[in-house]
Amino acid sequence: MPHALAIPIVGITPAKGFQGQDLDISVKANKSAERDLNAAERLASLAYDDMRLVDKLILERMGSPVPLIPKLAHYLVEAGGKRIRPMITLASARMLGYEGDAQLKLAAAVEFIHTATLLHDDVVDESGLRRGKKAANVVWGNAPSVLVGDFLFARSFMLMVDAESLQALHSLSRAASIIAEGEVRQLAAAGDIDVSVDSYRAIIEAKTAALFAAAAEVSGIIADRSEDEIAALDSYGREIGLAFQLVDDMLDYGGFDTDLGKNTGDDFRESKVTLPVALALQKANDEERAFWERVISNKDQRDGDFDTARTIIERHGALEATHDAARIHANAARDALKAFPDNVWKQALSDLAEFVVERVY
Amino acid sequence: MPHALAIPIVGITPAKGFQGQDLDISVKANKSAERDLNAAERLASLAYDDMRLVDKLILERMGSPVPLIPKLAHYLVEAGGKRIRPMITLASARMLGYEGDAQLKLAAAVEFIHTATLLHDDVVDESGLRRGKKAANVVWGNAPSVLVGDFLFARSFMLMVDAESLQALHSLSRAASIIAEGEVRQLAAAGDIDVSVDSYRAIIEAKTAALFAAAAEVSGIIADRSEDEIAALDSYGREIGLAFQLVDDMLDYGGFDTDLGKNTGDDFRESKVTLPVALALQKANDEERAFWERVISNKDQRDGDFDTARTIIERHGALEATHDAARIHANAARDALKAFPDNVWKQALSDLAEFVVERVY
Repeated sequence: MPHALAIPIVGITPAKGFQGQDLDISVKANKSAERDLNAAERLASLAYDDMRLVDKLILERMGSPVPLIPKLAHYLVEAGGKRIRPMITLASARMLGYEGDAQLKLAAAVEFIHTATLLHDDVVDESGLRRGKKAANVVWGNAPSVLVGDFLFARSFMLMVDAESLQALHSLSRAASIIAEGEVRQLAAAGDIDVSVDSYRAIIEAKTAALFAAAAEVSGIIADRSEDEIAALDSYGREIGLAFQLVDDMLDYGGFDTDLGKNTGDDFRESKVTLPVALALQKANDEERAFWERVISNKDQRDGDFDTARTIIERHGALEATHDAARIHANAARDALKAFPDNVWKQALSDLAEFVVERVY
Repeated sequence: MPHALAIPIVGITPAKGFQGQDLDISVKANKSAERDLNAAERLASLAYDDMRLVDKLILERMGSPVPLIPKLAHYLVEAGGKRIRPMITLASARMLGYEGDAQLKLAAAVEFIHTATLLHDDVVDESGLRRGKKAANVVWGNAPSVLVGDFLFARSFMLMVDAESLQALHSLSRAASIIAEGEVRQLAAAGDIDVSVDSYRAIIEAKTAALFAAAAEVSGIIADRSEDEIAALDSYGREIGLAFQLVDDMLDYGGFDTDLGKNTGDDFRESKVTLPVALALQKANDEERAFWERVISNKDQRDGDFDTARTIIERHGALEATHDAARIHANAARDALKAFPDNVWKQALSDLAEFVVERVY
């Protein structure tokens, strides 16, 4: 896994390119976003039949005679999200020419783990909103969110058992344990403005990239591929996961568009030092450092502080730098795919890496 | 310290061949309790070597580079409890003459699932105390309790994967899903004084008995026993689990001893209608029903209400009746063991069923 840990120290990195490649991306342009959305949609359309089967499985397996469970699970699953993780499992399996159907169960299991994590995150973060919608714990309370998360988590393991691969079970249970570790690490780091870029990388590698990595890897496992190929899939997933998280962190500060009407500022309100803040802190003057200390360390936030934070972050080019870092990881994800012969699925996975970086939502 | 996690009942020493010798144990309880405590300790002593290996596994597998995780997990595991669930797994495997070592991993996994459930329960119940000690969420907050619970849950699945039995994984992941369902069901029933004895049974069968059942069943699975024998083990575990929970419910109203200095009244404060209350409600006059409505449905509790609740419950013989129900389940547990040839382990499991009912803590 040559690229596995590489979050470059950005803000130093030149704004364009990685290993000499010129990326023809004009970030803010609708044109570029439109092309990249098409790439994501191409994957969704390619994986349409498989994804319908996965959705069916998800609906079936969240069933329970206890009414609150499917109600709450539905709320969250329907809140949607991009279903990127299960899509990676499905597309990887197809890329490898795998002919069984275990990938459907594993894809559903991956989405359940992700959903369970979101439910518990909402309790942990007390954010109030999730994808611009009231968080489940706001609607039903913390207790059902914790318990339905546990339910989905348990059900994800039942799905994995049905897929009948102990090695895939190992991969996903290990990812689940790493996610929890990453979340605790993030919790412990909350309010600490001296969190290093390295610590930040360790956090997002655990809380986000580990599940992406496992989502890709399990397809190699069930398709009975070599260790090298399984490692390449792990690397693809890990790198695209890092890129995904970095873009999320950037979008939480509004990305490059102030008028998205999106739910921004969650990380700020939760005093999380994400990469844009960590980078802005590296270049902070005394006044700025005092600002970050007040709003992050002392959690003393007032009206207008979020806008000030954005202004400082933009002043230091920290959003651009975060975006650059994401782009480097997306390129590493595409590089990892070189281990596999060309086909439409490989192309779609490659395009997905680009979409993840250029998305604006 | 190798015994840091050993069962905190009394000074247990390894059994020397188990010839029915008396262990030197003094207990402050009455004669009958003393005999039964000896029975529980006899099992602990018999399983001493296995249990030490399980404790070692538990310590190893709760390890993490994130310091808060082992700290919090330790706190809970050391709070102790009776380790009855893993003991059942260990003793069942020995009773069947199983010669591998997968039961050690499964026993540790069972204890992890139990511990994770306790952590999440404390968040859900907001009880404040756990076994007379401050609950983990009071000491560290809800967020770490949720996340460390998730961590232990994930680690329990990693242990199961190491045990290399998909069928055992199925059994325990199914149990985990049923536990969560039971907890949600209980949550939905909180404050409902018209909860029937049947609904109550469904709740405790899910939230408590399912894990006991799986803890016993998995030994039959790894020992490659017949479906009938596996079902008999499931039945043993389920019945002893029901007995255990009923006695817990009884003890939460102080049992038959008002001077235990124990942490009582948790269920009452959380407006849970357990069997003692459900039975008292069946015989309630208008005044008593109004009392239950106020304290349970309306959660309007005042000084002295818990004592009044105890008085009403005792007036209707509801503690005795709960104890009788527990005894019936314990007998059913012992009956289930008839499927197996006699040996010291079977005797110890049988005695454990009696202990569970006659214990006073």
